[in-house]
Amino acid sequence: MGIDPGLTRCGLSVVQAGKGRAVYPVAVGVVRTPSDMPVEQRLNKLFDAVEQWFDDYQPHVVALERVFERSNVSTVMNTAHASGVLMLAAARRGVDVHMYTPSEVKKSISGNGRADKAQMTRMITRILGLSEAPKPPDAADALALAVCHCWRAPLNHLVKGKL
Amino acid sequence: MGIDPGLTRCGLSVVQAGKGRAVYPVAVGVVRTPSDMPVEQRLNKLFDAVEQWFDDYQPHVVALERVFERSNVSTVMNTAHASGVLMLAAARRGVDVHMYTPSEVKKSISGNGRADKAQMTRMITRILGLSEAPKPPDAADALALAVCHCWRAPLNHLVKGKL
Repeated sequence: MGIDPGLTRCGLSVVQAGKGRAVYPVAVGVVRTPSDMPVEQRLNKLFDAVEQWFDDYQPHVVALERVFERSNVSTVMNTAHASGVLMLAAARRGVDVHMYTPSEVKKSISGNGRADKAQMTRMITRILGLSEAPKPPDAADALALAVCHCWRAPLNHLVKGKL
Repeated sequence: MGIDPGLTRCGLSVVQAGKGRAVYPVAVGVVRTPSDMPVEQRLNKLFDAVEQWFDDYQPHVVALERVFERSNVSTVMNTAHASGVLMLAAARRGVDVHMYTPSEVKKSISGNGRADKAQMTRMITRILGLSEAPKPPDAADALALAVCHCWRAPLNHLVKGKL
């Protein structure tokens, strides 16, 4: 499961890793919470939604975008609160969480750590053999995170000396 | 309930508001999670601990310190993740969360928005009539947040036009 965390829009995706670099799309969607609702209630809505995804798809692992400081402090904090709740949902089911920075995902998918949204959407549409581009961008980002993990996980194991 | 959010140390406190500015201490403590554990498991430990506090004390409202950007980005992010999980715990029980900045708490307790830790600890010890100063600082901060809310809540209502 790949998750692009957010409180206004949170991208969620599920893929199945195949042999080599084959990755198959299973599901993709976006959870929204209303911005005029108290933050704690928005977090509760997000938690309920991601619990439903865990129930429906029983993922083995979660790939989550790491939150960085950007221009808008209040957005960053809301995204960090959302990430906390998403990690909690995974931990409560014993599912490991792997964090990737946006540039790690871009580099893994497109070969370029500074690829723009249009390039990333084109690449992810092609990699997963989708008939049309996933929308909104949060959905495409969630798929990119999931594919990034499928491709990097074997290397992660090597680095940790597990192979 | 007053909460000074954190993943390494989270201060928790419960007070009872009396007449006027009277506030009585009920409980204070600190929850710690090991820094060598994956973040999602640390969040799970914190969530379990705060759930226990909710069970034990059935608070009517939560006063939580608002997370700001400080020097150490990784600490801020962990604190923001922890805040998300703490807010979720409150929302799941229908308990309102009120956020206060450190300077709002300092100003409310000591009259000075830049009071240092020693001043704040002295004031909170005196206000609550404690026989000794609460330790560590996270515990004192949690009590200060709870007292701050007791004193400011009537004003919050006025501002919102509820009185």
